[in-house]
Amino acid sequence: MRFLLHSDYEYVKEHGLQVDSCDGDFHINNVEAYQQTADMPKSDVVLVGLKSVNNHLLPELLTPLLKDDTIVVLIQNGIGLEEDLQQHFPQLHIVAGLAFICSAKVAPGRISHQCYGSINLGNYSAPKHNFEALLQDMLEAGIQAAEVPYLEARWKKAVWNMPFNGMTVALNTPTDKLLKNPATRQLIYDQMMEVIGAANALGVEALTSEFADKMIQMTDDMVPYSPSMKLDYDYHRPMEIPYLYTRPIAEAKKVGFEMPKLAMLEALLRFKQGSPQS
Amino acid sequence: MRFLLHSDYEYVKEHGLQVDSCDGDFHINNVEAYQQTADMPKSDVVLVGLKSVNNHLLPELLTPLLKDDTIVVLIQNGIGLEEDLQQHFPQLHIVAGLAFICSAKVAPGRISHQCYGSINLGNYSAPKHNFEALLQDMLEAGIQAAEVPYLEARWKKAVWNMPFNGMTVALNTPTDKLLKNPATRQLIYDQMMEVIGAANALGVEALTSEFADKMIQMTDDMVPYSPSMKLDYDYHRPMEIPYLYTRPIAEAKKVGFEMPKLAMLEALLRFKQGSPQS
Repeated sequence: MRFLLHSDYEYVKEHGLQVDSCDGDFHINNVEAYQQTADMPKSDVVLVGLKSVNNHLLPELLTPLLKDDTIVVLIQNGIGLEEDLQQHFPQLHIVAGLAFICSAKVAPGRISHQCYGSINLGNYSAPKHNFEALLQDMLEAGIQAAEVPYLEARWKKAVWNMPFNGMTVALNTPTDKLLKNPATRQLIYDQMMEVIGAANALGVEALTSEFADKMIQMTDDMVPYSPSMKLDYDYHRPMEIPYLYTRPIAEAKKVGFEMPKLAMLEALLRFKQGSPQS
Repeated sequence: MRFLLHSDYEYVKEHGLQVDSCDGDFHINNVEAYQQTADMPKSDVVLVGLKSVNNHLLPELLTPLLKDDTIVVLIQNGIGLEEDLQQHFPQLHIVAGLAFICSAKVAPGRISHQCYGSINLGNYSAPKHNFEALLQDMLEAGIQAAEVPYLEARWKKAVWNMPFNGMTVALNTPTDKLLKNPATRQLIYDQMMEVIGAANALGVEALTSEFADKMIQMTDDMVPYSPSMKLDYDYHRPMEIPYLYTRPIAEAKKVGFEMPKLAMLEALLRFKQGSPQS
């Protein structure tokens, strides 16, 4: 397993990678760390954990790693990521990876894993047997992986992501406080139903209001959590507004479905992105 | 002209009332100030400038002032104020007063008037000739008063109030910054169109998108402004959420019209009201 590292490269090369996990802490020594993909060998599987605001860099980053049957797994949030990458590499085998995990990098070379840890894989353009081999490898490595139809996988994740990522930024609060206040609890539910409505309009029939109930329940049971967008905002990094909000809202609009409360949330986020002091 | 004063009573009794106005500063000595309406004589006209969160006090406050033909002018923001007061006083002559003025109390006995200064009067339940006498008196006193049909007057004011009062609180910013950012400029416009749509659904046909354009233009031309709700929030006073948001949204819903973006804004405000730190 090889890692492409950016700002943490020197630290990890020297000290390794520390994971503080609810499932037990562990440390990886002698990490196969790289600073650029040009130095890495071609790979069978590439797991992409890049922030989607940097996806314009993906074609250049990926090129040295690709051989004919490389599978690229986009473990990223949002809608439309696979479509955009496929435009650059029409023959590439692409899989969507939707991580249901509460984790974040809290210091150089240090990951905090607070809870959960499953991943849904949606096959976008890999041959069936290659995809199944990937899934099998993950399961054998002890990862709670499951196959979910591609579009369903992406939109299921959006049901949680679109309300909570933005709302924790808009109101500067962790997830638990949003659910404790009756007004914002209802608002989060309404926003989830907008995502489910959009998914239904786009042909994802498996998503119903029961999934919103389940996501609310799951978040009630979670530790008070700051999603990735909240951390990005707090640390003055760009927020993943385009793939998390602009694109899904546009995709829904194409088939005549409006998402007014999430469109409003997008506007609030764009304001906050442009005025970090406020 | 008599004034009912609360926390400023002692100060104004001693020092009078200072108005710093864009139209010229002036000072009123020997203000006829009162601490309770029970001490005041019955009045021909009562101008009510109470925050609507305290309207449950109105019946008791008004009773000592009323004679058969007293006109009560509710110079307050929101929808449904006259209806609620009429419930308590079925015979009372009530007029709606919609102030288009940028002013605020900035210190004890000191008013800052930044710009504008007109008032729309909407006749809710006064006999026609009494209402016209009131309008005439105001005009002769140099007030830019105008008659507007009752429901139109209330909803016209809401076109500005509902977006700007809440959004300046939600994003902790004055009006000008909201209009400078393209995302929130569009959002403000969309919210104005929700108010206009609600007014239309309730039978107010005179309101069209042109009025939204006009309100945006007027706000562009205004000094950077913090509306009353922003000041209430900043000074940890209760915000006028019930009459400014809950009621108009409910009235629109009764006739089948949804206001999703303003309903979301209401939820954000309820969260902020309940968590003043955030």
